[in-house]
Formats: sequence, C-alpha cells, structure tokens
Amino acid sequence: MSFIESTDMKNPLIAAAILAAGFSQPAFAQQAGAGVSPFVMNTLFIVFCGVLVMWMTAGFAMIEAGFVRQKNVVNQCAKNVGLFAIAATAFILSGYGFLFPNGSWIIPGVLGFNGTIEVTGVVDSGEFTGRGHASASDIFFQSMFCVAVASIVSGTIAERMKLASFFIFTAVLTAIIYPIQASWTWGGGFLASDLGFVDLAGSTVVHVVGGVAALTGALFVGARNGRLVDGEKQALGHYSLPLATIGALILWMGWYGFNAGSYLSFSSDADAANVSRIFLNTNMAAAGGVITAAFVSYLREFRFDLSFMLNGALGGLVAITAEPLFPTPLAAFAIGMVGGVVIFWSSQVLDYFQIDDVVGAVPVHLFCGIWGTLAVALTNPDATIIGQLASVLIIIAFVAITTSLVWIALKETMGLRVTTDTEDTGIDETNYVLSN
Amino acid sequence: MSFIESTDMKNPLIAAAILAAGFSQPAFAQQAGAGVSPFVMNTLFIVFCGVLVMWMTAGFAMIEAGFVRQKNVVNQCAKNVGLFAIAATAFILSGYGFLFPNGSWIIPGVLGFNGTIEVTGVVDSGEFTGRGHASASDIFFQSMFCVAVASIVSGTIAERMKLASFFIFTAVLTAIIYPIQASWTWGGGFLASDLGFVDLAGSTVVHVVGGVAALTGALFVGARNGRLVDGEKQALGHYSLPLATIGALILWMGWYGFNAGSYLSFSSDADAANVSRIFLNTNMAAAGGVITAAFVSYLREFRFDLSFMLNGALGGLVAITAEPLFPTPLAAFAIGMVGGVVIFWSSQVLDYFQIDDVVGAVPVHLFCGIWGTLAVALTNPDATIIGQLASVLIIIAFVAITTSLVWIALKETMGLRVTTDTEDTGIDETNYVLSN
Amino acid sequence: MSFIESTDMKNPLIAAAILAAGFSQPAFAQQAGAGVSPFVMNTLFIVFCGVLVMWMTAGFAMIEAGFVRQKNVVNQCAKNVGLFAIAATAFILSGYGFLFPNGSWIIPGVLGFNGTIEVTGVVDSGEFTGRGHASASDIFFQSMFCVAVASIVSGTIAERMKLASFFIFTAVLTAIIYPIQASWTWGGGFLASDLGFVDLAGSTVVHVVGGVAALTGALFVGARNGRLVDGEKQALGHYSLPLATIGALILWMGWYGFNAGSYLSFSSDADAANVSRIFLNTNMAAAGGVITAAFVSYLREFRFDLSFMLNGALGGLVAITAEPLFPTPLAAFAIGMVGGVVIFWSSQVLDYFQIDDVVGAVPVHLFCGIWGTLAVALTNPDATIIGQLASVLIIIAFVAITTSLVWIALKETMGLRVTTDTEDTGIDETNYVLSN
Repeated sequence: MSFIESTDMKNPLIAAAILAAGFSQPAFAQQAGAGVSPFVMNTLFIVFCGVLVMWMTAGFAMIEAGFVRQKNVVNQCAKNVGLFAIAATAFILSGYGFLFPNGSWIIPGVLGFNGTIEVTGVVDSGEFTGRGHASASDIFFQSMFCVAVASIVSGTIAERMKLASFFIFTAVLTAIIYPIQASWTWGGGFLASDLGFVDLAGSTVVHVVGGVAALTGALFVGARNGRLVDGEKQALGHYSLPLATIGALILWMGWYGFNAGSYLSFSSDADAANVSRIFLNTNMAAAGGVITAAFVSYLREFRFDLSFMLNGALGGLVAITAEPLFPTPLAAFAIGMVGGVVIFWSSQVLDYFQIDDVVGAVPVHLFCGIWGTLAVALTNPDATIIGQLASVLIIIAFVAITTSLVWIALKETMGLRVTTDTEDTGIDETNYVLSN
Repeated sequence: MSFIESTDMKNPLIAAAILAAGFSQPAFAQQAGAGVSPFVMNTLFIVFCGVLVMWMTAGFAMIEAGFVRQKNVVNQCAKNVGLFAIAATAFILSGYGFLFPNGSWIIPGVLGFNGTIEVTGVVDSGEFTGRGHASASDIFFQSMFCVAVASIVSGTIAERMKLASFFIFTAVLTAIIYPIQASWTWGGGFLASDLGFVDLAGSTVVHVVGGVAALTGALFVGARNGRLVDGEKQALGHYSLPLATIGALILWMGWYGFNAGSYLSFSSDADAANVSRIFLNTNMAAAGGVITAAFVSYLREFRFDLSFMLNGALGGLVAITAEPLFPTPLAAFAIGMVGGVVIFWSSQVLDYFQIDDVVGAVPVHLFCGIWGTLAVALTNPDATIIGQLASVLIIIAFVAITTSLVWIALKETMGLRVTTDTEDTGIDETNYVLSN
Repeated sequence: MSFIESTDMKNPLIAAAILAAGFSQPAFAQQAGAGVSPFVMNTLFIVFCGVLVMWMTAGFAMIEAGFVRQKNVVNQCAKNVGLFAIAATAFILSGYGFLFPNGSWIIPGVLGFNGTIEVTGVVDSGEFTGRGHASASDIFFQSMFCVAVASIVSGTIAERMKLASFFIFTAVLTAIIYPIQASWTWGGGFLASDLGFVDLAGSTVVHVVGGVAALTGALFVGARNGRLVDGEKQALGHYSLPLATIGALILWMGWYGFNAGSYLSFSSDADAANVSRIFLNTNMAAAGGVITAAFVSYLREFRFDLSFMLNGALGGLVAITAEPLFPTPLAAFAIGMVGGVVIFWSSQVLDYFQIDDVVGAVPVHLFCGIWGTLAVALTNPDATIIGQLASVLIIIAFVAITTSLVWIALKETMGLRVTTDTEDTGIDETNYVLSN
C-alpha cells in the first residue's frame, strides 16, 4: 500500500506491477477555511459534465435498441453496456497516455508503447494537466468521450456482427486509434499547432472518427440479409420508436455536458458567460436539426417522420460540436438546420452505395461532423477553411486505414458476422436463453 | 462577422438582418487568477437547473407515450420532439423579448411587435439581465420553461389532433401568448407590481397557462371517437404504464431544477440555505401527492391505481411550484397532499362536462396550479389571497381568450382534427410508414 | 405562521402540533456582495448529488419492471413509486431524527421516541449539522439514501407480495430500522467510534441493510409459484430487457452522486481532487463488474448474458461504495471485478437454498456489499479487517432480527402474499383495471 507518485511508464504492461505496488492512494487532508478557488469550480463543473456525457451511453443504447428489430434488441443492449465497460477500461489502461503523451505526437513506431500512463498516480492537484482542474476529473471526463466513439459504431453494424469481435474492435479503437488521433488536436499535437485546427468538443475528433469506424465496419461486415432486394433498400422495421425517442432526448441532454464541459473551465465571469452561450447554442442547433427534418419530411411525404426528426436533432448537435461558442444563437440554429439537410442528402449517398447503416449513424456523425468542422471557419476567427479541411481529411484517412486493418484482422480470424441462421432467427433467440 | 452589441429591436423580422450581419459573436478573453464570483456561481447553478428542466421534455414525452394507445404512440413522440424544437426557437425569436420587454407591460396593440429581442447580442456579462448571472444562461433557462408550457398541451389533445395544426399552435403559444402573460409577473409587469402577485416558479405562469391552453384545445377538438358512449366515459387503454412511470419520475427529477432554478441565485449562504429548502419541499410535495392518490384509490377500490399515483406526484409538484421556499417541509407535504385531492375532484368535473383529457393534464396543471397559487398566501407574508386569486383569474381569462382565437383560426383553415378513418385506424399506421 | 426555531422534539407526534403552529418558515434575506463561501459550494454539490441519488429510484423501477413478468409490471411500478413517497415521508417524520440523534446511540428502549426531529426547523445556516452545508440539503440528500434501501427490497419480493403489506414494511424500515443502524456509523455512533468502522457511502449501511431486508422478505413470503419444480429453479422470463438496461444505466449514473455526495464537501482543492477520484473509481468499479460478468458468462455458455452484465455493473458499484476514495483506479477496477465473481457465486448459494430473488438484489446488494465493506481494509489505513467484519455482522444481525419481526407481524395480520389465483393470473390483471 505504498504511495506511487504520478508515474510515467513506457509500457502499459507495467500497469500490473503498479497495481501490485500501489493498490491505494492517499487522500488529501482537508484544508482549513480557505475560500473557493477556480480549481474547485472548474473541477465541479467538469465532473458534472462528465456525468452528462456518461448519460449519453444510455442514449445510444436506447436509440439503437429502438431502431433494431425485436429479435436483436437484447444483443444490442449487451453491446452497449459491454462497450461502455471496455472503452472506459481501455482508455484508462492505455488511451489516456496516448491522448496526453507529454512528448512527441508522431504516430508511434510500435503502436501502444508511446504513451505515458498516469492512471495509478492521480494524486496531484491539477499541476499535472496544467489546466486548473483535478487530474481525476480530467480522466473521468475524457474517458466518457472515448466511450461515445465506440457507441457511434455499435449502431451502424447492428443485427449481424459477432459481439465478441465487436468488443475486441472496441478495445483497439479506444485504447489506441481514438486517443492517438485525439492527441493531434487536443494533446497539443500537429493538427492544432501546425494547421491551426479548431474542434472544441469533437465534431471531428469524436464524431467523424466514430462515423468513419462505423462506415468501415459496415463495409466489411456487409448489409443485413434481406436489406437489399435487386439492389433496392427494403424497410426492415424497428423494435420501438418510443425507446428511440427517449434515447435521442437523453443524447440531447448529455450533449450539453459534452460541449460545455469541453470548455474545461467555469471559474471566471468570462467563463460563465461563454459556457452559458454553449448551452444555449447547443440547444438551438438541435432545434434547427429537428425543424429541418420535420419540414423536409413533410414536404416530401406530407407527414412528419419521427426517425428523421430524431436523427435531425443529433445531426444538429454534431454540427455545433466543433464550435459551440462563437456562433450567435441564430447562427447555431442555422448550423443545426444545415445538419438536417446534410443527413437527408448523405443518407441517399449511402443508399446509392448500398451501405447498410441500421441507425443512420454515418450520416449523423460522419457527414454532419464534417459540416460542423468546416463551419467553424464561419464564426471563429482562429480557424481557416483550409486548416479545417486538411485536418478532417488527415483524421479520416488515419481512421479509415487503421480501423480497416482491425476489421480485416478480425474477419480473417474470429470472423465478423454471425451465421445466416442466427441472423435470420435473431441473435437474441439463438444466443440469449432468458435465464431468470 | 462583425460584432453586434446587444441590439434592441422593435420588430422580430429584423432578426434575419441581424443574422446576416452578425453570424458570430466574440468570446470573452480568459481573465487571470481572480477568485470565484457570485456571478459565476449563479450562472453554474442556472445552467444545470436548465438541463434538469430540459429533461422534463423527455418526461412529458414518455408519460404521454405511455398513456396513449399503441396506434398513436409514434405520433405522440413526434409531437413532443417537434414542439421542443419549435418552442425553443419561437421563444428565442420572439418570446424572450416579450417576457422581458424593457418597457411597458400593457398588452401590445399589435401583437408581436412590442418585445425587444436581444438574442443576437448575448455578449454581456450579466448587466443586461441585472440579475447577477449570464444572459445566455437566463435565455437558456427561460426557454426550457417555455417548452414545458407546450408540453402540457400536447398530452390533453392527443390521439385526434392534426400534428401540423398543433405545431402552429405551439409556435403562437410560445412566441406570443406565454411570454406576454409571463412578463406581467416575472418581467416586472402589473401583476407583480400592482397586485403583489407571487408565483416563484410558475404554478400559474407556466402550469395554469398550459392547463388552460390544453382545456381550450380539448374543447375545440372534441373527445376521441369511442370515448363517450351514451354520455358515459369509456376506458380506452394505455400503451405502456412502465413508460408512463419513467416519464413521471423524469418530471419529478426535472422539477427540482424547475423550482430551485427559479430562485436564480446560489451565491450567498442564505441562497444555499433557501434553495436547499426548495429541493426538500419540492420532494415532499410530490410525496404528498402520491400518498393521497394511493390512499384515495385504495379506499375506493381496494387497489393502488398507478396512473393516479403518477398524476398525484405531478399534482403535488405543480402545487408547490408557486411557493416552494416558505412552507416548512411538513407544510409542503400537506400542500402536495391536497394536490392529490384536487386531481381526484377535478377529474370528476371534467368527466361531468364530457371533456376528454387523455393524460389528465388539466386536473394536474390547471387545477393543482390554481390550488398552489392560492396556497402561497398561507405561508408567504408578501402574498395576499386576493392578489393571488385576481392574478390567476386575469391570466386564465387572457389565455382562454387568446388560445381560443388561435384554435378557431386553425379549425377554420387547416382543420384541427384528423379524419375519422385515420383516428380509428391509428394515426401511426396511416401516417407513419416505418422506413428504416 | 409564527416562526419556530429549530425545535428539538422527543416525540414525533409533536410534529402535528408543530405543523399547526409553524406552517411556514421565513426565507433568509439576500446578503450583499460577499464572495462565495465553502458553505455555498458544499451545498450546491450536495443538492445536485441528491438529485442523482433520487434518479436511482427510476433506475430501480425500470430494472425491476424489466425483470418481472408482464403480468406484474404495473404492480412493480406502483411499488417503486409508492415506496419513494413513503420512504421520503417516513424519513422526514422520524428517520432523520434517529440518524442524527444529537445524543446517545443505544437502541432506544421504546422504538421511535428517541430521535430528535428537526424537520420543521431547517432555518439555520449549517451550524445545525456542523458539516459546512445547509441543513435542508443534508435532509434532502439523506432522505434519498433512505429511499434506496427500500428500493432494494422491492425487487427481490416482486410478483407475489401484497402491495399494502410491502408499503407498511417500507414505512417501518425507513422510519426506524434503517436510520437507527445508520446512526451507529454516520451519526457518530459506536460502530464508528468504538470499532473504527469505515463505510463512506454505504456498502453496508445502505446496501447490506437493503439486502438483508430483501433476504428476510424472500424467506417469509416464499418463492413464486412455479419457480421450483422438484427443487429445480425454473426460468420464468422477463418483461423487457431494454427497460432493465436503461434501469441499470440510470443506477450507474445516479451512483456517482451516491458515492461522491457522501464526501459531503466540495470546497477546497483537496476536496476537488478527492471527489474527482470518487467519480473515476466509481466508474472503474462498474466497468470491472461488467467485464467479469461478460467474461464468466462467455466462458460458461459461449454467449454474453445481458442480465448478468447489468447485475455485474451494480455489484461493482456496490463493492466500491464503502471506500471509493483510497483505491487507485486500477484497484477500483479490481474491486469491481471481484464483485462480478461474488454475484456469480452467491447466486448459486441462493439457488442452493431455493431462495427466490426475482431481480438478484441479494447477490448484488448483500454479498457485494459485504465484499466492499471488507475491501476497505485493503486501501484505507484507518480501517481494520476485524472492525469492518464485526460491524457488518452486527448490522446484519440487527437488521435480520428487526425486519423478521416486522415480516412476521405483517404475515400474522394482513398477510404477506397475494392469493394463488391472483399470482397465477397476474397481479395487474386482478388489481389494475386499466381506467383511462
């Protein structure tokens, strides 16, 4: 039970040794009667925002459970609960070290051994992150972002992928792929320093990354049986749109924490004014996405399409995520409205290429993420359209290549897809004997 | 991308011009090392309370989805998601200007052109609202209240109203009707200044207003087919009481933010003690409502009626909303208990008049709202029973007249009601081809 | 409407008199321009954590609604909503006085008359509790803990217990049994002072207590009809695993407030660093529980068992609850992983003894609670394995005896169990005429 001070490690495997040596960490002694510091305020803000981001996991779980067919809904829930646990663990064991490597940001020669792991030594008072809030609050908050990336993937490849293969993919994505590219922007890496890339809360760093991983997954696993008949997309039905609705509203709620928490500070009057705008703008963008979706569906079919409205809200939210501070509320509304259009258009692109995205995560996260990333240049004087475009393309290329390698490796070994029998009967019936 | 300082506008249409001119707003520069100010604390408190109030939207969506029949549940979800987007937008474009008009509070001669719109210029540090918290936090919080008003209406008129008509009604309600009457109480208007009206969090300003709009809607759209047979009310069934249960618990949770956030301040020791009481009293009133409902239903039918218990919780919450601070916890419990009785009695009144309120929103929001408004005089020395009664009657009259005019206008143009065929088959089956 | 200063009362019945005399309490006057005090910060932290703990009620309601059969789901929802109201009320009327009795901690000779009730006089500024936060925030927060204890019981005895009997049991549990034993640890009583018992957030004080009450309930009410055929456990099926999933994720979310809020302070830099670790460790323990459950079920049956994974998360959370501060994040993960094993093993013990626990609450709350309580000694230098073990055994004995007495009394008077007809048909169909 000795105390290990924030240890730098060059190899994640040492974590086991640290675990043996440092099972406990000393608590800080209560200090007497000082006033409230900015450090305290920032930390309080960040942990509560982290709770909101965690809550998005339930949102993804419910929207995906709602959109799959009844015969696969238990599998989809297990997928979301499992990926949460795996992603949070992988990020602690490895990801956080890659994200803030305290050193060089080149892609490490040997994947996985460049990062610095600090997880056993969160005993500082904020000097570690240099950001004016407690280290553990930072790790907690960032780990929830990492979970969101995996959650995006799980919806697209629903109803036909082997759960064990998906879990292994999740571990690699969150331990290595996501944090490495995130370090280029948020860890002080070359996209931020050389290209002036601005992505406050992750339209690209989180959503485009998740969307690309989902897209490569959909390509490697293929469309569901019965999805395409003579090249035509068939409607396969949903389990429960009310569940999808609460899922979308949970995501909407959690997104306040996602965007506002990324400001990482709530201690000065300026912080308070700025972060308040982020709350307001986040909401306006979601509203804009819903209104576009409702309007477009009404014009086309003389009815309001709930699924499209829910995805419209999410598309608006993804679009405002890169820059929720600088737009005026009406500009945020407009950015969200365009998000709704982007979803409509990009869904048709996916259909054209016969890509089967069960919940529409690629239009929402990849395409609206690109739009939001480019839109930063409209309002934030620090961003350029070239820098934004180059950065998002670099990240897309990196994630497309690395995730494809992982999907291929899984396909060649464990296999990606359940058997045709299992898929037709339903993954639940085959795999889940209800054992109460 | 020029910077527009908080612009006063006499015409909402100018918003478009502002939008073109002022697509972005400058962020505040981070200040060095100051301590934490009351402004910061108040703002943090308000944005998190705003998140809780936003969450109530999901509560309304789920309780209404649970109480309608399966054949209309998708329509009901679309209604709630759509109204959220519409109300938030309408309030930003017009409502907030009416609510805090910086000037006279008489009913504007030309509806819609009296207000001052500040939405494109939320760049101040709180001087604007003069309340010690950031402007954008205020707009965010108030817009969520505005959404709640529309949510109340959507449940009562469920299962037979045209969605497009309801959305237009929502826009008028939240852009004009709600904020004008709210300004009389919360914007410094004549109810507060001349009649001494006290309504801290809106038993009348939000809930009675929503309840009256729901009642007029129910009167103009009429009862559902099959609801009344020979003048007798028929039970039509529910989609899912577990969904209604989580809806009610979401509302219960969100209500802490609704009532506590209305205090608008959390920076002094006195604030902390006062607001803590609001949390406690809000909970006690909900508990009181549940217990009355459980007891009454057990006495009458030797069983516990879940639907009544859920509405009992909401009735208790509505009743404590006008004055959640001054009552002792036991008094709050008693006020909530009476709320349960009010629901029981007023439901029978509605039945007598053959008014079809699908979710029981009129008993909960209108009648318990009146009770809560009058009960202020029992504990708050600043309130008088006469002032409370006169104010609630003035607001009821204003909302009854204005909403009736809107319902009539819609009925004469687009029509309020779906066809008999659609209603019998179910709105979902007719209007929602499941297109996945 | 006179003002009663924080009144000490020796008899709860006086509450009625106080109620008549003191229906209202004066609000504090706003103070001018002081800075933000630790008192304010702590109070803000505690009320928001209290909201998260309240939210766990919805989590219990949904996980239990998901795990029971469809024919009893309305009954289960009514049980959870009703117990919330009853527990919050009982705790205010009696429990809080037992929990912080301002005096001796021996079991009172005449149950129910030892406590000091302060509920009508929460008018102080924190001196009352001596903890640096507002009294009402403390009562609010503690009352939500009390609710959780009753929620644990309701799942185990589902599908066959009379609701009225359960409600009376809940009242006694939360008014008397829970708070008396809690005072021994948290109220300055003999377990803390004499045995050095450490249980920060209640692995024993809340979860073991709820688990023991659930176990005695299961023993006295007996197994469900059809559960055991020739001594073999039969799978009876679930209503909805997606509902159970959102329930578990709600509990996971609420648990941050449960564990972090128990620190009761968020005003110094040390607080911020310590509480941040609690958030992180709480999450890591839940992740560990999920991973164990997933792994064990995969090894045994080559599939991932969602129900077990959900209970694994909860088991990990229960295990970290006694000491969420001192473990390193990896140690917290390990403690949670062991929790998953404890559930697996203890479920088999229950099966061996033919005990019917519908939702698995006894393995999760009782057995993982014991594990978590003992694990404190691994990381917290203030705890000893002997002191931990002795304390948990004392509490188990006290709760087993007292709850058994209540169950027996109920069985001999009102009866504990619904009729066989009702149970076979389903409690909902017999008792809940859907009256919309």
